[in-house]
Amino acid sequence: MLKVLDFKGNFDDIAVKFSSRKADISKQVNDSVNDILEDVKKNGDKALMKYCRKFDGFMIDNPKDFVVTKQEILDGVSEVGKDFMRILERTKQQITEFHKNQVDKSWSMYKGNGVMMGQLVRGLEKVALYVPGGTATYPSTVLMNAVPAKLAGVKNLIIITPVKADGKVNPTILAAAYVCGIDTIYKVGGAQAIAGVAMGTNTLPKVDKIVGPGNIYVATAKKNCYGMVDIDMVAGPSEILIVADEKANPKYIAADLMSQAEHDKLASAILVTTSSSLVEKVNQELIRQLSYLSRTDIIKESIENYGGAIIVESLKEAFEVSNYLAPEHLEVLVENPMNTLPLIQNAGSIFLGEYTPEPLGDYMSGTNHVLPTGGTAKFYSALGVYDFVKYSSYSYYPKAVLETFQDDVIKFAKLEGLDAHANSVAVRFEEE
Amino acid sequence: MLKVLDFKGNFDDIAVKFSSRKADISKQVNDSVNDILEDVKKNGDKALMKYCRKFDGFMIDNPKDFVVTKQEILDGVSEVGKDFMRILERTKQQITEFHKNQVDKSWSMYKGNGVMMGQLVRGLEKVALYVPGGTATYPSTVLMNAVPAKLAGVKNLIIITPVKADGKVNPTILAAAYVCGIDTIYKVGGAQAIAGVAMGTNTLPKVDKIVGPGNIYVATAKKNCYGMVDIDMVAGPSEILIVADEKANPKYIAADLMSQAEHDKLASAILVTTSSSLVEKVNQELIRQLSYLSRTDIIKESIENYGGAIIVESLKEAFEVSNYLAPEHLEVLVENPMNTLPLIQNAGSIFLGEYTPEPLGDYMSGTNHVLPTGGTAKFYSALGVYDFVKYSSYSYYPKAVLETFQDDVIKFAKLEGLDAHANSVAVRFEEE
Repeated sequence: MLKVLDFKGNFDDIAVKFSSRKADISKQVNDSVNDILEDVKKNGDKALMKYCRKFDGFMIDNPKDFVVTKQEILDGVSEVGKDFMRILERTKQQITEFHKNQVDKSWSMYKGNGVMMGQLVRGLEKVALYVPGGTATYPSTVLMNAVPAKLAGVKNLIIITPVKADGKVNPTILAAAYVCGIDTIYKVGGAQAIAGVAMGTNTLPKVDKIVGPGNIYVATAKKNCYGMVDIDMVAGPSEILIVADEKANPKYIAADLMSQAEHDKLASAILVTTSSSLVEKVNQELIRQLSYLSRTDIIKESIENYGGAIIVESLKEAFEVSNYLAPEHLEVLVENPMNTLPLIQNAGSIFLGEYTPEPLGDYMSGTNHVLPTGGTAKFYSALGVYDFVKYSSYSYYPKAVLETFQDDVIKFAKLEGLDAHANSVAVRFEEE
Repeated sequence: MLKVLDFKGNFDDIAVKFSSRKADISKQVNDSVNDILEDVKKNGDKALMKYCRKFDGFMIDNPKDFVVTKQEILDGVSEVGKDFMRILERTKQQITEFHKNQVDKSWSMYKGNGVMMGQLVRGLEKVALYVPGGTATYPSTVLMNAVPAKLAGVKNLIIITPVKADGKVNPTILAAAYVCGIDTIYKVGGAQAIAGVAMGTNTLPKVDKIVGPGNIYVATAKKNCYGMVDIDMVAGPSEILIVADEKANPKYIAADLMSQAEHDKLASAILVTTSSSLVEKVNQELIRQLSYLSRTDIIKESIENYGGAIIVESLKEAFEVSNYLAPEHLEVLVENPMNTLPLIQNAGSIFLGEYTPEPLGDYMSGTNHVLPTGGTAKFYSALGVYDFVKYSSYSYYPKAVLETFQDDVIKFAKLEGLDAHANSVAVRFEEE
């Protein structure tokens, strides 16, 4: 099962394999997405309806029917039942407790000379959350996006999601939207939905940012609208890296590796350990647990192609490997796991100790499950409140202080060849 | 000069004009950039040298010559002279004083039940700053990027910049790099330089993020490498919007409008005021001051095409206009300018009062001059320390607390069809 990967020999190969699991955007996908963007720009709601009929079989002919009614939402809430509503509320509370620590405040600085400067933090006004349709519906992802957006002060938070011929949104999505206080849900998905909220139509608002996962058409449309609106990161297949010492429990390691492997044939599950006998025991557990799990074909294929064990000399070396790969999820199953935090440079979310399995973080620990994949944790962050705000600076200078900068600003501006810049300071000290 | 724009009639037209000043990327530019990316991926330094010879006339044949030597840097420092070095140091100090307020700390939260969670803040490891060559060299931009990067804790901060046949980097750039403690400067520009640092070659390091302005080839290469590395925002032509009441000084307004108009024929300069007589006086000042400025063709064209005055009923309405346009630079020339901050939702940088002209902020006030343009201040921020860090979350749960979440996590995971997720929690409470 888990192949032992020779760290000394093919470390770069592992890294390249790890970071190249993304599906390339074909020219064909890119062209058809651009056609849709152009069409929605010209024809608005009409184009949206056309593509919903064509791609989803949703036979809409009045744009009013894009909007999910209050009654539909309430029906979804009854359908999922009280117990699941309780779980959603509990999850929301857990996510809120963690993320409220990320809420940033505007600040001012006052210099003794009368200068005042500072930074305003403002929530984005309008944000659209894309929620994929189909069988794999993830109400947890609605919570993971909506809670930080609301904490940031986003005024208008909408959901766009595709529906099939029956025109129905999955009730778990409706229930999650209800719990989060989503303003409006629109029954439109695919590249046309992204185009609609990036540019605005009669029915869809033009938003400031689009977040949420989607298929290759949705991802391409988001990428091609980047700049017109902001988008969240470009997500790839999921991954887990577990750093374990010889005392770690192989049963837990096997279970946690498979919890990521089951997501996708392109998912990656890697064990980095100081103990080669641990690898043996993990392999036995993989076989045992696979016997009763359901998504076994996916698990086997992802572990075969993108899984592996790396045996290292020391924990220090283990974290060098981990920092090099920059995993989305990092589990630390060693004695005194908290002591390892200073060694961690690159990871999306870190799970410390035997009783913090990664799936707890997918749902209810409170940390965000929208995380950078494929090695991009080197430069991207876990989704957070900071993704739904923007910062503006401000400054106030009294005349006497500007005067002390007058000569230097004028020299600097002239050196850069910008004499209207120099003039803007100079006119303020001209004799009348 | 300044046309009065009818706010009631064509407000959307103004906004569209304002936000559509970006040059579209032609298919030809995109294709030739992609060819260069492919070539650098395959041929590394060889490809870099080929394009430097072809596009810049820099006849390099040994990749070692990409690296600017210590002696070249010291020569640059002597060449600019002591007075300019003093100005650079003073500017750096001003920028540092403001930006050190943006330095973020890692935090932990401890729940009473033994749960510990938190967020790590880590500076990016490797960042490349692109510095354009040619006549318009902006040492100020080196400082505006390098100071926040260094404050964020970036370990390896490099500059990439094109050189011509003489192989020389502009001495003001060398001096600014010296002041900022840039680690290495490479004599390579254009799309090939972006490709080089996005993927790494024998000579150029693979970096985590690329920042800095550049021509359409550089911007396209950055956009096409996005995801492989992080990039800063997609910058467009500059703009200023001035909100002024009837008491504002028309001389200052005219000077400040022109200080942005001189950047580019696509720059935009807009006055929003409660006073129609002020517009008259500003127009007289524009004519008077143009008589002694140098970049008059550019100023005239940008004011003609993208400038204008908007007359409003009240300051409240003035800020509605300003928030709608979301200007890069917003000057507030009214009585009690500080009182207007609560009205401002969208602006890159805000300049309050008569003696805080925008060009002060371009150089020495301390705020950043790398700002969102073309209405993107609705969702992008001024460049800051936060652009050079990433956040990772961490969590630690004791067994007893995981147990209280066990049933709900398992239910949630099964509802989402992910039974290996459920299993990861369940195995921890199996009977041995």
